[in-house]
Amino acid sequence: MSKIITLGEIMLRLSTEGNARFVQANHFCIVPGGGEANVAVSLSNYGHEACFVSKLPKHEIGQIAVNALRSYGVDTQYIVRGGDRVGLYYAETGASMRPSKVIYDRAHSAIAEATPNEFDFDAIMKGAQWFHWSGITPALSDNAAQMVKRACEAARRNGVTVSVDLNFRKKLWTSEKAISVMRPLMQYVDVCIGNEEDAQLCLGFKPDADVEGGRTDAEGYHRIFELMAREFGFKYVVSTLRESYSATHNGWKALIYNGKEFYESRRYDINPIIDRVGGGDSFAAGLIHGLLTKPTQGEALEFAVAASALKHTVYGDFNLMSADEVESLVQGNASGRVQR
Amino acid sequence: MSKIITLGEIMLRLSTEGNARFVQANHFCIVPGGGEANVAVSLSNYGHEACFVSKLPKHEIGQIAVNALRSYGVDTQYIVRGGDRVGLYYAETGASMRPSKVIYDRAHSAIAEATPNEFDFDAIMKGAQWFHWSGITPALSDNAAQMVKRACEAARRNGVTVSVDLNFRKKLWTSEKAISVMRPLMQYVDVCIGNEEDAQLCLGFKPDADVEGGRTDAEGYHRIFELMAREFGFKYVVSTLRESYSATHNGWKALIYNGKEFYESRRYDINPIIDRVGGGDSFAAGLIHGLLTKPTQGEALEFAVAASALKHTVYGDFNLMSADEVESLVQGNASGRVQR
Amino acid sequence: MSKIITLGEIMLRLSTEGNARFVQANHFCIVPGGGEANVAVSLSNYGHEACFVSKLPKHEIGQIAVNALRSYGVDTQYIVRGGDRVGLYYAETGASMRPSKVIYDRAHSAIAEATPNEFDFDAIMKGAQWFHWSGITPALSDNAAQMVKRACEAARRNGVTVSVDLNFRKKLWTSEKAISVMRPLMQYVDVCIGNEEDAQLCLGFKPDADVEGGRTDAEGYHRIFELMAREFGFKYVVSTLRESYSATHNGWKALIYNGKEFYESRRYDINPIIDRVGGGDSFAAGLIHGLLTKPTQGEALEFAVAASALKHTVYGDFNLMSADEVESLVQGNASGRVQR
Amino acid sequence: MSKIITLGEIMLRLSTEGNARFVQANHFCIVPGGGEANVAVSLSNYGHEACFVSKLPKHEIGQIAVNALRSYGVDTQYIVRGGDRVGLYYAETGASMRPSKVIYDRAHSAIAEATPNEFDFDAIMKGAQWFHWSGITPALSDNAAQMVKRACEAARRNGVTVSVDLNFRKKLWTSEKAISVMRPLMQYVDVCIGNEEDAQLCLGFKPDADVEGGRTDAEGYHRIFELMAREFGFKYVVSTLRESYSATHNGWKALIYNGKEFYESRRYDINPIIDRVGGGDSFAAGLIHGLLTKPTQGEALEFAVAASALKHTVYGDFNLMSADEVESLVQGNASGRVQR
Amino acid sequence: MSKIITLGEIMLRLSTEGNARFVQANHFCIVPGGGEANVAVSLSNYGHEACFVSKLPKHEIGQIAVNALRSYGVDTQYIVRGGDRVGLYYAETGASMRPSKVIYDRAHSAIAEATPNEFDFDAIMKGAQWFHWSGITPALSDNAAQMVKRACEAARRNGVTVSVDLNFRKKLWTSEKAISVMRPLMQYVDVCIGNEEDAQLCLGFKPDADVEGGRTDAEGYHRIFELMAREFGFKYVVSTLRESYSATHNGWKALIYNGKEFYESRRYDINPIIDRVGGGDSFAAGLIHGLLTKPTQGEALEFAVAASALKHTVYGDFNLMSADEVESLVQGNASGRVQR
Amino acid sequence: MSKIITLGEIMLRLSTEGNARFVQANHFCIVPGGGEANVAVSLSNYGHEACFVSKLPKHEIGQIAVNALRSYGVDTQYIVRGGDRVGLYYAETGASMRPSKVIYDRAHSAIAEATPNEFDFDAIMKGAQWFHWSGITPALSDNAAQMVKRACEAARRNGVTVSVDLNFRKKLWTSEKAISVMRPLMQYVDVCIGNEEDAQLCLGFKPDADVEGGRTDAEGYHRIFELMAREFGFKYVVSTLRESYSATHNGWKALIYNGKEFYESRRYDINPIIDRVGGGDSFAAGLIHGLLTKPTQGEALEFAVAASALKHTVYGDFNLMSADEVESLVQGNASGRVQR
Repeated sequence: MSKIITLGEIMLRLSTEGNARFVQANHFCIVPGGGEANVAVSLSNYGHEACFVSKLPKHEIGQIAVNALRSYGVDTQYIVRGGDRVGLYYAETGASMRPSKVIYDRAHSAIAEATPNEFDFDAIMKGAQWFHWSGITPALSDNAAQMVKRACEAARRNGVTVSVDLNFRKKLWTSEKAISVMRPLMQYVDVCIGNEEDAQLCLGFKPDADVEGGRTDAEGYHRIFELMAREFGFKYVVSTLRESYSATHNGWKALIYNGKEFYESRRYDINPIIDRVGGGDSFAAGLIHGLLTKPTQGEALEFAVAASALKHTVYGDFNLMSADEVESLVQGNASGRVQR
Repeated sequence: MSKIITLGEIMLRLSTEGNARFVQANHFCIVPGGGEANVAVSLSNYGHEACFVSKLPKHEIGQIAVNALRSYGVDTQYIVRGGDRVGLYYAETGASMRPSKVIYDRAHSAIAEATPNEFDFDAIMKGAQWFHWSGITPALSDNAAQMVKRACEAARRNGVTVSVDLNFRKKLWTSEKAISVMRPLMQYVDVCIGNEEDAQLCLGFKPDADVEGGRTDAEGYHRIFELMAREFGFKYVVSTLRESYSATHNGWKALIYNGKEFYESRRYDINPIIDRVGGGDSFAAGLIHGLLTKPTQGEALEFAVAASALKHTVYGDFNLMSADEVESLVQGNASGRVQR
Repeated sequence: MSKIITLGEIMLRLSTEGNARFVQANHFCIVPGGGEANVAVSLSNYGHEACFVSKLPKHEIGQIAVNALRSYGVDTQYIVRGGDRVGLYYAETGASMRPSKVIYDRAHSAIAEATPNEFDFDAIMKGAQWFHWSGITPALSDNAAQMVKRACEAARRNGVTVSVDLNFRKKLWTSEKAISVMRPLMQYVDVCIGNEEDAQLCLGFKPDADVEGGRTDAEGYHRIFELMAREFGFKYVVSTLRESYSATHNGWKALIYNGKEFYESRRYDINPIIDRVGGGDSFAAGLIHGLLTKPTQGEALEFAVAASALKHTVYGDFNLMSADEVESLVQGNASGRVQR
Repeated sequence: MSKIITLGEIMLRLSTEGNARFVQANHFCIVPGGGEANVAVSLSNYGHEACFVSKLPKHEIGQIAVNALRSYGVDTQYIVRGGDRVGLYYAETGASMRPSKVIYDRAHSAIAEATPNEFDFDAIMKGAQWFHWSGITPALSDNAAQMVKRACEAARRNGVTVSVDLNFRKKLWTSEKAISVMRPLMQYVDVCIGNEEDAQLCLGFKPDADVEGGRTDAEGYHRIFELMAREFGFKYVVSTLRESYSATHNGWKALIYNGKEFYESRRYDINPIIDRVGGGDSFAAGLIHGLLTKPTQGEALEFAVAASALKHTVYGDFNLMSADEVESLVQGNASGRVQR
Repeated sequence: MSKIITLGEIMLRLSTEGNARFVQANHFCIVPGGGEANVAVSLSNYGHEACFVSKLPKHEIGQIAVNALRSYGVDTQYIVRGGDRVGLYYAETGASMRPSKVIYDRAHSAIAEATPNEFDFDAIMKGAQWFHWSGITPALSDNAAQMVKRACEAARRNGVTVSVDLNFRKKLWTSEKAISVMRPLMQYVDVCIGNEEDAQLCLGFKPDADVEGGRTDAEGYHRIFELMAREFGFKYVVSTLRESYSATHNGWKALIYNGKEFYESRRYDINPIIDRVGGGDSFAAGLIHGLLTKPTQGEALEFAVAASALKHTVYGDFNLMSADEVESLVQGNASGRVQR
Repeated sequence: MSKIITLGEIMLRLSTEGNARFVQANHFCIVPGGGEANVAVSLSNYGHEACFVSKLPKHEIGQIAVNALRSYGVDTQYIVRGGDRVGLYYAETGASMRPSKVIYDRAHSAIAEATPNEFDFDAIMKGAQWFHWSGITPALSDNAAQMVKRACEAARRNGVTVSVDLNFRKKLWTSEKAISVMRPLMQYVDVCIGNEEDAQLCLGFKPDADVEGGRTDAEGYHRIFELMAREFGFKYVVSTLRESYSATHNGWKALIYNGKEFYESRRYDINPIIDRVGGGDSFAAGLIHGLLTKPTQGEALEFAVAASALKHTVYGDFNLMSADEVESLVQGNASGRVQR
């Protein structure tokens, strides 16, 4: 059990029920979530002391997010309370050839308007083994980017391993802006998670292959992983490889590179998908757990892929699977027989 | 944007939740729908001025149906208010090999008991580009059949294109009755939508192939389309071709004939189906939009097939897709990736 | 229409909604069910006079179970009222590679603490054609095992056919205990339902093949069926053969042996599965109906397999299909077309 | 425990949730109910063998009504199955000064279109102690009126006590029609329930006082009760006296006259009312139970008033209170303390 | 039937179910509403041509608001589409001594960030009889205040009667700011609705009496009404007078002054209150309808008070009562008897 | 902010929705609660470090209870995980004269079967200011009674103030047993909460007045409080005084005695009551907070009474009010005006 820090935004997903379209909705399910918060919940479920760092308003809507984190055992003591808004996003869930749809309403949220001085990152990092963040956090605002930098520096001072999930979001910033912010931050990073598109848009690497169409080509990732590891000195470069057949049917596997060897995971056929939002975050969490507890990168990756495959069967951003349940799938128990 | 008239019945579907059987139900979802009303909603969603013509009671249950149409922008000014009943149908949704089940309770509805004189069809057709009806409307009552005839005559007087969806319903009338009513009405029709079964039961054409088993045979349709076009002078003869593997898995494509050439659309594999009721209506609406806005019958048909494939992923009778969303699928974007 | 007796426990399943995990639940659906109760409901749906024998507390929670049975026409006059607890089990429904999960809370239920003298089995069996029980009932308690023995003796005295569904439940007893209780009871049994695992764990037969992985091998069952029939004089030995691809996709067929010939049923591909709990019970009920009303074991088995395949598409333990609906599937009507 | 027959219509109430207005509804709760069916359920809850006689379609919507009755132990063997429609009524629940609203859609229901010959009333009445009907049943159709007459004759032949709840419904018939049908039926009646308005509109008695405004005047009823008893030879004349302060606050008491003495019950202040539909039926059922089991008309009336007061706190048409719970209120236990 | 314009913001109320506190919520009901939008819906329900003027984003969340208005017949053609946010407010509903609670999240909404030039007020006002706005709209932003000014000027140019509901909101602006904006706008106003607090905080009138404690003192309003009428030349000055006993129990009446005479309405005791949000707006709408259609200010006021009393019994911001239903209460029909 | 320990059982309340009776239920709301757990949640809401000590199974149903506590910030580190059952109770909510009804199913729960040695009470009490328990905990089992004794001893050793809520539960033990267990434990108690009935049944004091009928007589409590304080040396003796008019309408006040003076609180009229379960626990929590933070017993009591009055307006066992909200009511703000 390790102390693990994640830094970012937790939003309320306002989700239509089942597969209802927005204009059919008469209520929204409240689904708290956000990249780094999702990672924290997964890690708490695996038995770690997961601390989520953010800022949320003092009012009850902020409290909804805090309580959701607390209910899964996440340590919320470093969440600063203040500001006006909880970030929101509206979501409807697709099916077959109809894609899911997300409408963001996250501008002006408390964390986007927070300043770095509101957080004592040395106190936060003290005693921690791991610090994880994603490319979403620095994209929120210049202040948030500065916050990430401060957190990374404190992590380094405290000997904390740092991982990043590049996670480019075109609604939040341009590739140009992303590259200018993200590249300098890479010096602090030990483990970099990102697909070709992220590598291109966040770090400026030219892609070899088109991954738009849902095709995954693990081979095509080899060259770019080597470039990334070489340039930034990452200990591990990792990517998931999603095959999108439809909104409810995906293939799912991943690739890891430790600077010497590549390891490609088992592939899962996920059908039906219950909820794919948070799939990448559950992978990051599984990878952190795997790298902290497994002897090889291969075993770490298999845990991460199994964990995130299972996430696709769980409603909500949070991956509500225990380590034992993930291990059971890693062991090949995928028949879906009733567990009595 | 065109003014488009549809004439028929809007009912309330009383639908069990999810896949519940009737005897499990403790509540019914209220899902307004009906062939021509569904067409009107689709066309309003595509930006047209869609006017739905019908009769509904003055009481609040009638108002539920009016409000549902208004919420999607359908023009309800030509809906006569009066009579006692809103037509109903009970529905449960199947899965795998269990079929969906529909129980009608539509006899004595306001529109079935309305008389043609209650409608001023010349006023209604004035300025319209298109008039659409289906074989369900004249099957409701002799008065309703007379109403369709008056509407068709007014359409012709006003230079309005007329389309029909043959849509034979054995619970409403016999084939003999249908043939006696429908054949004389075909003289007003420019675009005829119907499969082999409809052609046989509504118009008396002898089928070439058994389409019961879910097999579709576009080839088999060629001869009958030619016969239909020749006899009634249809500008277009069109049919969807459904492959029914199970209640939740269908293949879906369509065929069009403009009197000279046949065009067979792309085929969609729909799995899972969320709701197939209204699939044919969404096709008719897509076809009308396509024929009004696309240069070729092939492009019109591809829009119609994509629109109706998407309908199968939307709960309720109404197809709540925008023209942009349909075009996106026509362009091949079927991977179901989250639209952020 | 026959009088058919079943003896066992009816519990309340407390089920999370849809695919929600336990820790996401804010309410539980109340789903009454239990092996022999499920069989009784199916048989009542097929038009038989089905009597369920059990014990339930006098309070309203016990009444919930009684009312559920009554609503489907099951005769509840032989249910003794008393004791403190209604047995419960908590259930969440999996998807894809995530299995469904069941947590039992059935210890100390009224039927588990009942004594054989509370039931007048001769009165119960009088005029009955069939008595069905499963291996779950004697596993509840020594008293319950004694109750089954008394019921079997009364059945014999009254010329009632007896069927058993071996149904080994490792949470209720060990294989050693099961063998010591079940083997002596087999002398009363005419029709024995059970797969290889049940045969091994309840009756002590050594398996030929591994059926864990979801593989079904009808051939492998031949030898063991012959052994079972020979040793215990069963008129029929029967097993379902489930292929578990995932929590939502199974293959499903069955095998029967009448001491002379084997008959293997048609295979159904069930995708998606709505609820597989009670699948085995629906098979037993279909088999009883089939053996009571069909001329051959093959026809009986086809009814049973079709009935239980359909059960997988119905939410809850009870199989809410009529005999007509089952026959329709037996006739090959699996296309899922809407029944209007 | 007595065998008690009731004859009438059971409908499905389609009810908006909580206090929602019709035009706000997206689903309807399914609440089976109908005057005489409600009486049967109450009597079954009090331990009697209650048989409800009616006609319902064979389809599953008819089955919903049958199952609802069976779940509460009502004997449904005399319900003829056939016809097309289950009668419906839509309901929204008011609050404060906003009244509840009911829209009927019961024309052409199976029972309204049934004929007397479909029922064997002598078989039905055999062994019965009591037969209850209301003024709603003969109002459904001439056939239904004839059915009531036949039932009353069979009751007399079999020595069965007959009660009527006059229950004038202006949507079903005029006062003139009602008087012409109801007066001849009064010769069969032993116990007549009805307020001044019913006495006037169904039987032609001229009222003494205006009871429209919610004022109850037990005194004012004395003369009319005497007239009614004298003219028709009723053993008991009974009426509830409702004070309507608002949709959610009523006063509630009753008056009985046995031809010699008047007895006025305790008055209950009901606030809030959960559901007042079926309040009169619960009174009739309580009165029947009281007259069958209590030594005096006063005790019978107190049971009836307490039972129906409690009904106002129960959602749905059916009064789901046990005799013990009613007795507890009769004993004065109205403090609402939690029963642990 | 008059053409009536209202201008303001429509938000989505995200409301917990029943009386749940925010931190108990797992979903929010979607309740579209906003002062002037509520007025428009009421007026449409009374048969007027109500046009709501605002700005909403093009995305589906904006569409939810548009569709809600259209479903009640409000003309939405003057709603400009653009901007990013739909204004939100979170609400929980109190009971007894626990107050309801509202948390606003409306900053940066599309209408708050709109500019006056986006609206062609002369086109909007053409043919209109009435223009209504509230003090909330100019409080949204300086641009919005300018918009109101332009709308008022266009109203004057087109001979349109103007009403205002002062409605001071301390979360949106200070009293100083309000006074500086509102006083100059009063020159355009014919009918001014506002209580003492509004008069003080928006217009700078010194109050005579403390109305904080729920006490209403119609007398105390006389002087201030006279001052207001004299200073600004209002044709009518009007205020509701609410007595707040608890969150679920209020007294409700109103006072009007036409420059010559005062008229105080009947008082309603509302218990229980279902939803008091929008109560003031329903009063304004009732007053507009009353002044447009009734011969005296007294009759207009009685309509307004009855309408708004009824609103307290309807869930949601919108007052879903017809003019007939309001008239029925005006006539004294407050007994809450079921309307069949 | 103080560290406060509570010891007891947390159960899952399985609650029908709204006012539904058990036999109407098709789902149960999951409402975690239990005397001492409720106290812990209240105290955490007031900003204290509240630690709940209990035992819960390792499985997910146990986890539901843990997560509920964590979500409200309760420290769950001292909850031992093990055993089989989570205690349950079924509840339906009454209205008017229909009482709420509770059916317990708590026998054999993990805490009832736990042994004292599983808890290290000295570690638990270290640094704590207050320890609270109720008469329910020792009633669970002899082991549980022993556990309370050990906890009390450890509290004394660590200088921790001890409070008890006598809370006699006749379903758990007899008065004789209660007296034999409770009296010896009183030596450790500083603050004793209990009404006359508790004092009689748990401690053997003879009552002066009948409080059954809902009458409260603060005077009548004086003598018994003096006796209790004298015999056991309590620093404070306290009781709530409930007037039960109906299930939905109560009066509510309280009385405290510090060995010298009596103080009787303000009286609240609660109408409607949303949920009175947990009302007493919210009073205990308010009293602890009051005694820890207020200068006088009177101010402490007013906080406790206001807190618990507000609890009656909150659904569920937990009192989800902040200290600020309680203070606002103490200050007299009971008008229920919307808090914007």
